[in-house]
Amino acid sequence: MKVSLPPQTLMLTYPILIVGSYDAGGKPNIMTAAWGGIACSQPPCISVSLREATLTYHNICASGAFTVNFASEKYVREADFVGMVSGRDTDKFNVAQLTPVKSKQVNAPFVDEFPLSLECKLFKKIPLGSHTMFVGEIMGIVSDQNILGQNGAPDVGKAHPFVWGSSPKMGYYSLGEPVGFGFSSGKEIQHQ
Amino acid sequence: MKVSLPPQTLMLTYPILIVGSYDAGGKPNIMTAAWGGIACSQPPCISVSLREATLTYHNICASGAFTVNFASEKYVREADFVGMVSGRDTDKFNVAQLTPVKSKQVNAPFVDEFPLSLECKLFKKIPLGSHTMFVGEIMGIVSDQNILGQNGAPDVGKAHPFVWGSSPKMGYYSLGEPVGFGFSSGKEIQHQ
Repeated sequence: MKVSLPPQTLMLTYPILIVGSYDAGGKPNIMTAAWGGIACSQPPCISVSLREATLTYHNICASGAFTVNFASEKYVREADFVGMVSGRDTDKFNVAQLTPVKSKQVNAPFVDEFPLSLECKLFKKIPLGSHTMFVGEIMGIVSDQNILGQNGAPDVGKAHPFVWGSSPKMGYYSLGEPVGFGFSSGKEIQHQ
Repeated sequence: MKVSLPPQTLMLTYPILIVGSYDAGGKPNIMTAAWGGIACSQPPCISVSLREATLTYHNICASGAFTVNFASEKYVREADFVGMVSGRDTDKFNVAQLTPVKSKQVNAPFVDEFPLSLECKLFKKIPLGSHTMFVGEIMGIVSDQNILGQNGAPDVGKAHPFVWGSSPKMGYYSLGEPVGFGFSSGKEIQHQ
């Protein structure tokens, strides 16, 4: 049976986007966001939506750059932690024992321990309401070599990512088995 | 070891956003997109980026509305299929044996067989390059009652969603075990 729910930000799964930035003094900060995703193929862009109350919001406005980092399962505690506290009163890289590395492409730090980082230049800033969307052009990518598959792209079987899943306990979930394949599973219907 | 990759739209996982819309004659269409995510909490908004070549692009421009539907695992073939072919030459609802239901909130159809659908009014249209971002204000939500947890939100343990994972075989992946919990796992670091 279908039921109607009030307007709210519901999906079944959300990405865990860990945003790196420098403040005006060059101090690195990271925070976890779940509002965002790829925004454009050419130029390649990713969007992250942030509240003005966050330090990251002001860092990106000033620096014009940020990174989006993706953690592997063994860093789920760190990913959660950097979304819980503010960089205004906590040196999150230091407390979480993560290593900021200055991107060669943009004025922002990436997280050395995480397997994949997108190096972004601020492309558009779009106020929407409680959140402002920062669209970043992906100027470069830093990846752990050992997560890459034969096609040169990351392989989740090696990178062990996790997503945030909608559930009463607000769980972070690893990936399970493949249940289908892109531009492949649908052929069973196409050729019926 | 870190390696640099050329600029491209890489994440470890992507959402599967199945967009419903009507054409000018009221014919329903759906397509699968992976570029998008929640964009704002208040007003609640979700974004989907589309190429102008798609029928859905023109449908949303004309109708000012769309739905974003989330499929469960057993509909992975259908989700893949509606991303493979164009609504210009295929009645995708009909071929995939899915049922379009007119939203009571907006002028767009949702997919009756899928457990969760967001009913969106076009809020902003943002040209970025190859893709245009459609930000939709979530005016209502239709959910299968049997996927809701005790907190009234969807429970992935009941909804059985899947994500697209970066891998050579372009797999759709079910969720595995929880590896942590939001605003909880990070406390181990906070209290060290």
